[in-house]
Amino acid sequence: MRYQLFYWPGIQGRGEFVRLTLEDAGAAYDDVARGKGGMDRMLALMNGGRDMRPPFAPPFLKAGPRVIAQSANILFYLGPRLKLSPRAEAGRLWLHQLQLTVTDFVKEIHDTHHPIASSLYYEDQKAAAKLYAGHFLKERAPKYLGYFETVLKKSGGPYALGRKLSYIDLSLFQLIEGLRYAFPKAMARIERKVHGVVGVHDRVVKRPRIKAYLASPRRIAFNESGIFRHYPALDA
Amino acid sequence: MRYQLFYWPGIQGRGEFVRLTLEDAGAAYDDVARGKGGMDRMLALMNGGRDMRPPFAPPFLKAGPRVIAQSANILFYLGPRLKLSPRAEAGRLWLHQLQLTVTDFVKEIHDTHHPIASSLYYEDQKAAAKLYAGHFLKERAPKYLGYFETVLKKSGGPYALGRKLSYIDLSLFQLIEGLRYAFPKAMARIERKVHGVVGVHDRVVKRPRIKAYLASPRRIAFNESGIFRHYPALDA
Repeated sequence: MRYQLFYWPGIQGRGEFVRLTLEDAGAAYDDVARGKGGMDRMLALMNGGRDMRPPFAPPFLKAGPRVIAQSANILFYLGPRLKLSPRAEAGRLWLHQLQLTVTDFVKEIHDTHHPIASSLYYEDQKAAAKLYAGHFLKERAPKYLGYFETVLKKSGGPYALGRKLSYIDLSLFQLIEGLRYAFPKAMARIERKVHGVVGVHDRVVKRPRIKAYLASPRRIAFNESGIFRHYPALDA
Repeated sequence: MRYQLFYWPGIQGRGEFVRLTLEDAGAAYDDVARGKGGMDRMLALMNGGRDMRPPFAPPFLKAGPRVIAQSANILFYLGPRLKLSPRAEAGRLWLHQLQLTVTDFVKEIHDTHHPIASSLYYEDQKAAAKLYAGHFLKERAPKYLGYFETVLKKSGGPYALGRKLSYIDLSLFQLIEGLRYAFPKAMARIERKVHGVVGVHDRVVKRPRIKAYLASPRRIAFNESGIFRHYPALDA
């Protein structure tokens, strides 16, 4: 099966959690909107397009005739197929529950620079962003990362589900990587209490396919259009 | 199977999407935290408790030995068991994708009164809330509801998946009900363009078990501690 991933070109965004999974598994896929005519194809599949089950927003994955949206849902679908998830229902749902917590976390990370409206520029909501980011770095980021630290302790590690890596670990890698980019000062402090999560990051970054991916042009660099943005004014 | 639902007592919140599903199916369940000693039991099961798979936050459902968190994940689990979801994988994932879009919408609804931080009172973020709510009512609410309207048109209706009700329809009912409570003026305008979604609401409210539930003390009234809050200053 050759997958087709649809996501905004130019940013890692929510699509990156899917890319990392496809890359780690060595799956064949096209990053459609980055290719010629790809944006038109993506927009045609969205809300209002001809498909009977239109996605609300990218990312979405075309797998044969099926179109699947919402990054956590895509990973839930891909997990067993790419051997990055348990097969039994209880394990799959637990893994999915963790991924949905990542989804919640990612939304709050996004809102550090867009607390008032996605339709406004950051520059037009800077004061609110500073307030939001202050609470986020003091309360929310330590709470979410501390939760995953607890999960790692309970599983026995070194991965979230225990001895075997699953797709959530790739997401934890991305969270650490992105938060370090966006908030280097605050993260130096926060990381001291989440050694297990940082340990997952350090293991993931050494995996041959991830290493090759990160060094390739397929990995888009962090930038100030994505979810993780480095605005020094927001980094406490 | 008698289910145990754990959620903050005193508010409908995210637990309500699960309650409506259990109620419509006539399932046996306890709303644990509303009973004697229930809050202690709930807190003991959360992050840091003895369970090996601790939830990040309520709601969570205990089904035999399993603990399942994240409302959309709980509904995904309950759906086929309560006959409120298709059984085949493709249909289940599509339904789940829609429910995850509800999750995103609910978070934005919550943020109309808490755009800066959950840890602050509404009164301490009123100015930002007014700005947020303005964009929300002009851009986001019509976009989300318009999306579900498109889904209804494509399915042929009268329900989101077509002729048969599924758990997403109960969530659509709750969205209309809650948005009307929070933003009566804006909703009078917005509803004009989403007759299909309002139609789902009107069908759900007539279902005998839902009707009985809404008239019972099990249904907590909307209030200003929940997700849907009526602050006239925010209703454009």
